[in-house]
Amino acid sequence: MGDKPIWEQIGSSFIQHYYQLFDNDRTQLGAIYIDASCLTWEGQQFQGKAAIVEKLSSLPFQKIQHSITAQDHQPTPDSCIISMVVGQLKVMMPLPRRAPSCASGTPRRARHSSHQPHRAIFKLHEVKRNKIKM
Amino acid sequence: MGDKPIWEQIGSSFIQHYYQLFDNDRTQLGAIYIDASCLTWEGQQFQGKAAIVEKLSSLPFQKIQHSITAQDHQPTPDSCIISMVVGQLKVMMPLPRRAPSCASGTPRRARHSSHQPHRAIFKLHEVKRNKIKM
Repeated sequence: MGDKPIWEQIGSSFIQHYYQLFDNDRTQLGAIYIDASCLTWEGQQFQGKAAIVEKLSSLPFQKIQHSITAQDHQPTPDSCIISMVVGQLKVMMPLPRRAPSCASGTPRRARHSSHQPHRAIFKLHEVKRNKIKM
Repeated sequence: MGDKPIWEQIGSSFIQHYYQLFDNDRTQLGAIYIDASCLTWEGQQFQGKAAIVEKLSSLPFQKIQHSITAQDHQPTPDSCIISMVVGQLKVMMPLPRRAPSCASGTPRRARHSSHQPHRAIFKLHEVKRNKIKM
């Protein structure tokens, strides 16, 4: 890990921290959001710590498990880190139903020295097999 | 479109412009990148207009067609727009082979008044059908 650029190390640590909180007790995510934070969840927009925590807490699944398959990080000119995460979800719903099996998210930290996702976009998409026209 | 927030209108217009250039003649993307731009392509990192255009121009497919299925945009405190795009790819390779059928990208503009993706992350992923544990 020592050979990786500092923004990759910080970004990777933050993503691990973020999804651990999300999977174990997502009400605790309130500790890392701030009032300037924005969240887009499946096209719905939320701004501010209270609105974001309310949305995340009210999601219909009881248990969720993120399995990250890839993550990329870039530093930005204003000392932030932008991250893109791709992975799969396992969810426990109140009533069994078809669940999204792939997710992309871009939690973004405010400053290198803190752990605050200023901007986060989540997009769930069902996995379908498509025929590719060559 | 008039009812949408200004950052959604600008972000959507930029994404349309960006992928039109990408699909028609991706060497023309050099016109919108700047020397401070960063690109992550399947985990490989490139910085600066010249390196990014060289990478995009040398991609092995002859023709590509992006089909955007969803896009989300958020304004940032430093007057930028962060976008996440999810869609499907149709590619024409020199030799037929299995092609990626899903892509996520986050082209990001520098300022509202310009069209410069400061940060872009592309992640292609094959589509597989997975069994979800409920």
